[in-house]
Amino acid sequence: MKQVFTEIKSIDEALNFLFDKLKPLTDTFQTETIKVKESLGRVTAEPVFARLSSPSYPSAAMDGYAVSYKNTLTASERSPVKLRVNKEALYVDTGDPIPNSFDAVVMLEDVHLDGDFIEIYNAVSPYQHVRTVGEDIVATELIVSENHIIRPIDIGAMLAAGILEVKVRKKPVVSIIPTGTELIEPEVIKDRIPIPPEIIEYNSAMLAGLIEESGAKSLRLEIVKDDIELLKNSIEKALDSSDIVIVNAGSGKGSEDFTLSAFEELGEVVVNGVSMKPGKPLIIAFIKNKPVFGIPGYPVSAYLTYEIFVKPVIKKLLYLKDNEDDSIEAYISRQISSQLGTDEFIRVKVGVVNGKNIATPIGRGAGLLMTLVRADGLLNIPSFSEGYSPGAKVKVKLLRSKNEINNTLVCIGSHDIILDLLANMLKKKFPDYSMSSAHVGSMGGLIALKRGEAHIAGTHLLDEETGEYNIPYIKRIFPKDDIRLINLVYRIQGLVVKKGNPKNIKSIADLVREDVFFINRQAGSGTRILLDKCLKEAAIKPSSIKGYNREEYTHMSVASAVLAGIADAGLAIYSSAKALELDFIPIAEERYDLAIPSKNFDLGFIQVLIDILKNDEVFKNLIKELGGYDTKDMGKIIY
Amino acid sequence: MKQVFTEIKSIDEALNFLFDKLKPLTDTFQTETIKVKESLGRVTAEPVFARLSSPSYPSAAMDGYAVSYKNTLTASERSPVKLRVNKEALYVDTGDPIPNSFDAVVMLEDVHLDGDFIEIYNAVSPYQHVRTVGEDIVATELIVSENHIIRPIDIGAMLAAGILEVKVRKKPVVSIIPTGTELIEPEVIKDRIPIPPEIIEYNSAMLAGLIEESGAKSLRLEIVKDDIELLKNSIEKALDSSDIVIVNAGSGKGSEDFTLSAFEELGEVVVNGVSMKPGKPLIIAFIKNKPVFGIPGYPVSAYLTYEIFVKPVIKKLLYLKDNEDDSIEAYISRQISSQLGTDEFIRVKVGVVNGKNIATPIGRGAGLLMTLVRADGLLNIPSFSEGYSPGAKVKVKLLRSKNEINNTLVCIGSHDIILDLLANMLKKKFPDYSMSSAHVGSMGGLIALKRGEAHIAGTHLLDEETGEYNIPYIKRIFPKDDIRLINLVYRIQGLVVKKGNPKNIKSIADLVREDVFFINRQAGSGTRILLDKCLKEAAIKPSSIKGYNREEYTHMSVASAVLAGIADAGLAIYSSAKALELDFIPIAEERYDLAIPSKNFDLGFIQVLIDILKNDEVFKNLIKELGGYDTKDMGKIIY
Repeated sequence: MKQVFTEIKSIDEALNFLFDKLKPLTDTFQTETIKVKESLGRVTAEPVFARLSSPSYPSAAMDGYAVSYKNTLTASERSPVKLRVNKEALYVDTGDPIPNSFDAVVMLEDVHLDGDFIEIYNAVSPYQHVRTVGEDIVATELIVSENHIIRPIDIGAMLAAGILEVKVRKKPVVSIIPTGTELIEPEVIKDRIPIPPEIIEYNSAMLAGLIEESGAKSLRLEIVKDDIELLKNSIEKALDSSDIVIVNAGSGKGSEDFTLSAFEELGEVVVNGVSMKPGKPLIIAFIKNKPVFGIPGYPVSAYLTYEIFVKPVIKKLLYLKDNEDDSIEAYISRQISSQLGTDEFIRVKVGVVNGKNIATPIGRGAGLLMTLVRADGLLNIPSFSEGYSPGAKVKVKLLRSKNEINNTLVCIGSHDIILDLLANMLKKKFPDYSMSSAHVGSMGGLIALKRGEAHIAGTHLLDEETGEYNIPYIKRIFPKDDIRLINLVYRIQGLVVKKGNPKNIKSIADLVREDVFFINRQAGSGTRILLDKCLKEAAIKPSSIKGYNREEYTHMSVASAVLAGIADAGLAIYSSAKALELDFIPIAEERYDLAIPSKNFDLGFIQVLIDILKNDEVFKNLIKELGGYDTKDMGKIIY
Repeated sequence: MKQVFTEIKSIDEALNFLFDKLKPLTDTFQTETIKVKESLGRVTAEPVFARLSSPSYPSAAMDGYAVSYKNTLTASERSPVKLRVNKEALYVDTGDPIPNSFDAVVMLEDVHLDGDFIEIYNAVSPYQHVRTVGEDIVATELIVSENHIIRPIDIGAMLAAGILEVKVRKKPVVSIIPTGTELIEPEVIKDRIPIPPEIIEYNSAMLAGLIEESGAKSLRLEIVKDDIELLKNSIEKALDSSDIVIVNAGSGKGSEDFTLSAFEELGEVVVNGVSMKPGKPLIIAFIKNKPVFGIPGYPVSAYLTYEIFVKPVIKKLLYLKDNEDDSIEAYISRQISSQLGTDEFIRVKVGVVNGKNIATPIGRGAGLLMTLVRADGLLNIPSFSEGYSPGAKVKVKLLRSKNEINNTLVCIGSHDIILDLLANMLKKKFPDYSMSSAHVGSMGGLIALKRGEAHIAGTHLLDEETGEYNIPYIKRIFPKDDIRLINLVYRIQGLVVKKGNPKNIKSIADLVREDVFFINRQAGSGTRILLDKCLKEAAIKPSSIKGYNREEYTHMSVASAVLAGIADAGLAIYSSAKALELDFIPIAEERYDLAIPSKNFDLGFIQVLIDILKNDEVFKNLIKELGGYDTKDMGKIIY
């Protein structure tokens, strides 16, 4: 049953195999004739030439009087020429036809109307203010060439030239077959939680959106169970009504992965495994001369293999270039290492700080769709590279527009759910601005600020000696820079435990109990520093706590671990316990501030951010509802 | 009846009036709840928080065996740990749930299967290869904020988090009312030519496309005749079912322009005339608190007033920023003057020549839709400027992508229909490349080449002294540069006359006849130089030819003028006469070459262009069908 990747190919090799095999399909790909009025965004399959000239007869370019220029030759201020209306002159509105007996138009404001006559004070030249035949479009001229994406103005020009129908490239039809016995439709669990082994099938909706954006039509077929015959039937049915088929998941080498076998039995497999990460278990086959893709199940792998392999096929069938306008140059903010021999794709946040694009890598797991949602761009580390050092100049393919990135406030540091609410309030009140947060802990945030990688940092660092929050750290880390601290909130930290507190945990001291499993936060986070201080005060050795070495990166992940039963207790803020309906034992109130370099103070998004903190009562009320927060100093300058 | 623009406003003033009045509508604009699966491209009207965590239970991140990490602590190469399958170890595929009794996964390739047992050679850490609850998405976390355009990955993430419906901004509905007694639907003249005063109504299809591209829904109402009551009824009906109404044409001051009066009777006019060109006769009113636009009838005016006034209203109702990413810096290739006090919008061609973006202005008439179709960008000359000198650095708003512009071969010079066919053949065979032509005559082309504004120039300049084509001019104009000449065709020039030659014109000598009206080509064109040489040889004075001073810019315009009866004869190439079924009296065969600086020879698009000329038999046959061309030296290096 077990399949092995015997011939893993590089991305370029795989693309070459794919496009070699694709050629017969590209060369004969169908066209269709559609109404010009319905052709927006379609691709022409032949050049379009004008049937009619526009204007199709001489017409007035101005409101005024049509005249014969010869009759005006002697006109002057002193001896105007008089012409009889409706005989030697004719009133015309813009667009009106010019009768054969006339050959020029005098503007309304240049004539004096005197009973049945008009007076003209200047000689006019032939065809003055007359739109001649074909002034805009001459019959037979080329309006748009072949392989052109039809725009609104092209539609206008074609209709003006008497063209009602246009031959365009057919939209490729791409079928998606989700496969996996455990998959369920999202609608099935509308009002409940998935019961193991249920997995929500959401990749196909993402792929359908990507397919539509590529200019093709998506067709989503029913979920197929892990059964090779059912899968083969579904593929064959899909091939009858589509040009490209995607089988999602089952492309690996697990005991229930039948994609490879199904492809082998139905056609010819040309690629089985690509040296990329995420996305390695990609299979490409040709069945009935059509490309069929076995796309891996992890969402980020599915996204990347679609973008790198399926989208170019769609573009090729549409005779379009795959646009690459959307890359920028950026500087890497921290070390990234990568495996030799594998093309790796790293999700990054990009911020413009001090005029430079700074790219900060975020989560690399193939299963982390949210990191893709939050990413601003993708960075490719080619197979011959072992990675980049901080400060390296790299090319980043953008997932958001440059404009959006220029208007993004970059916040790196400690996590608090209030930052999510703040990001949303900013975007709600000022749709031009966005705020992006990366959660690396308080210390990580201050270091990012120091390196010029962030505009602001969220921090709640307790100084053990003085018992003071943040200020001692600012003084130590930024001895020369001018940094201000603005208070965000005071908040309650405490132990998050299961509902009803079944293990009867009452204080930090209970963490050493044999039956208590703890879940920790990462080193450098303010919460970790708080824990370590509490342990020291209680004279507890970290090694005596089971789970001390298991780290999560946010309050919510700690609470989730408790909810899921992975741990019995974790230190986190009250709102995270409340959100998941867990019990909570308060330990300490702490001050959470935003550190902002003075030079960033005048930036538009910082100004409005501070204004929200100071003055927005709706925002303050939202936070109070969360529980465990005190907003009394919100927006106040602390330092 | 006559209306006067009493209070013409600047663009900024008009926008301020518009947005002041719009505020109540923006603040209360509707939202709707739709299926997540159908939300691609829509704008969120509230933040979306996760309902479920993903994964929602601990699951295998790899294919392998689920184990309890404690059981592996003593494992080593020398003394592997043996675990009984289905008791102490359980086979799991990626994504399978991990039962409570296990807390880690050992990859398939790291175990040795021995009967009912597996052997493990290394201790595993807790939660190794296990996806914990919420690893990707933690319940309650923010997935997308308000005012966010939903992308395929967002759809995936929302479904993964158990969100099936999302509240989005309603799509604004924009009604378009075409008005004008003379307007006809394009379908009416499917098989014939418009009969004066018929005018094809094509603006509404262009506007509908622009509206759809802006993210709104367009509704095209029936054409309304020039009757104020009918117009008022149509506007009132439109307001019942839409958020914005556009009345197209009738916004000027002609005798049948009722738009202003209709607006005044129904509501409040806030703008009547804007100091912009094209686009001055714009009217904006508010009727029942909704914005109603009277948009001018000329297509370029309609396009510009839509882009500057209507589109920002749509974006505002969608809470979106009007994206301005699409501007580049370019250098103006020739003098442009502009009226003080008016914002002028100039259509330009943009080419990347010698690494610099060169913007060349093209036709400025408000009625010239084809110049907009052919334009690469728009250049705004602000009201306080009198224009730009050659070489001035300007900002150009692009109408095509930067990528397309980088891949565009710029050909400036003499016009020949073969250039249109060549442009199409290039785009057909190499969809990545485009060719843009500007018709400024042979001499103008060589000067553009000299200035570095074009990659190639089409030229057919006859040297009077030597009788030789092109080479003497190249030597004179480029004494130091290395220019090559590649032959395009030999072609027949002659007199184009009406069908049946009713005036019995036989030679150049007939042009002086009292009853013959001539239409000329512009000074500097090869055809004009040919005419002047013929006149000199025949000892005819230019002043003795009626119409010698009337100039057209292309062969087809000359032929069109003859077809339309504006002239009896003109000098042009045979194919133009044949295309319009006119008679033709041959005068001379001439050589038409392409001048190409040697340094441009290696450019990709030049290489493939020359390859088409040399080797493409399909292309040669297309040209032979046109008539009057000899392709014997096509692609041959002449100089």
